[in-house]
Amino acid sequence: MNNDSKKLVLRMIPYGIYVLTADDGKGNVAAATVNWVTQTAFAPPLVVVGVKADSGAYKILKDARVFALNMLGKDQKNLAFTFFRPADVADGKLSGQAYRKGETGAPILIDAPGAIECRVTAVVEQGDHHVVLGEVAEAHLNRPLSGRPDASILEMKDLGDNVFYGG
Amino acid sequence: MNNDSKKLVLRMIPYGIYVLTADDGKGNVAAATVNWVTQTAFAPPLVVVGVKADSGAYKILKDARVFALNMLGKDQKNLAFTFFRPADVADGKLSGQAYRKGETGAPILIDAPGAIECRVTAVVEQGDHHVVLGEVAEAHLNRPLSGRPDASILEMKDLGDNVFYGG
Repeated sequence: MNNDSKKLVLRMIPYGIYVLTADDGKGNVAAATVNWVTQTAFAPPLVVVGVKADSGAYKILKDARVFALNMLGKDQKNLAFTFFRPADVADGKLSGQAYRKGETGAPILIDAPGAIECRVTAVVEQGDHHVVLGEVAEAHLNRPLSGRPDASILEMKDLGDNVFYGG
Repeated sequence: MNNDSKKLVLRMIPYGIYVLTADDGKGNVAAATVNWVTQTAFAPPLVVVGVKADSGAYKILKDARVFALNMLGKDQKNLAFTFFRPADVADGKLSGQAYRKGETGAPILIDAPGAIECRVTAVVEQGDHHVVLGEVAEAHLNRPLSGRPDASILEMKDLGDNVFYGG
């Protein structure tokens, strides 16, 4: 395989930026910036997330069996970088960000424009990141969007000219 | 669940536009425009595609066990619409488009800027579209890209102000 071509062609896939959250109910709360996300079905509404298999967030998510994807807004580049670091809960905030429990118990970031809560329906343990399939159980629009919804989300290309996660 | 919120928040996920191709070696060639795609691992390089479970393309792909994702370029909106319709092979072309067999046998559209060939490693049969997981076996850069790779690909939002596939 031509590895240069593989890297470039895989980097053609456009990505939004999300904060993946989960709470295992035993005091462990996960919050991690992710971008490998796609919807995979309408009925029921299913989404896939690729999650780093050796990460703390993945362990908590697997125990919790529910998670949220918090969609970051165009102006929330700082939050993307906040959640590249391990999360901590202090003073009722998640790495300094206000949140509330969603219907499933997954943390919802109040300042993110939107979020979905999902129940894990399958995990495929292949590769250095595993495929987590979730059925959307609840959705939150935390503030009105203007224009196309996919024009409101923070994208990988907004993080910097040479920032990629893929390839 | 609030269905309006679910639709809007899921539509925040940005998508590129791809032509999914497969050849079962028994005279059946698939080519269908898809958008539900994400990478899910670096090592090995894995991608997920959500494929309509009752489609002809899905049947061919499942038999072939290999497929290609042809990344469309910004200027190839016409190809996206060409492959919304059932594909046909005539005069050595696929719905009028020049192609060649890749290393795996999957059809590679010569005019697409890039393509990856994948071997199916798992299928999750959940929902009206199924999750097809593929390991990247070969990648083709058919012409040089300028700027960020993810700025070169045709996106859902380029197809029309009110065109969505998701929600």
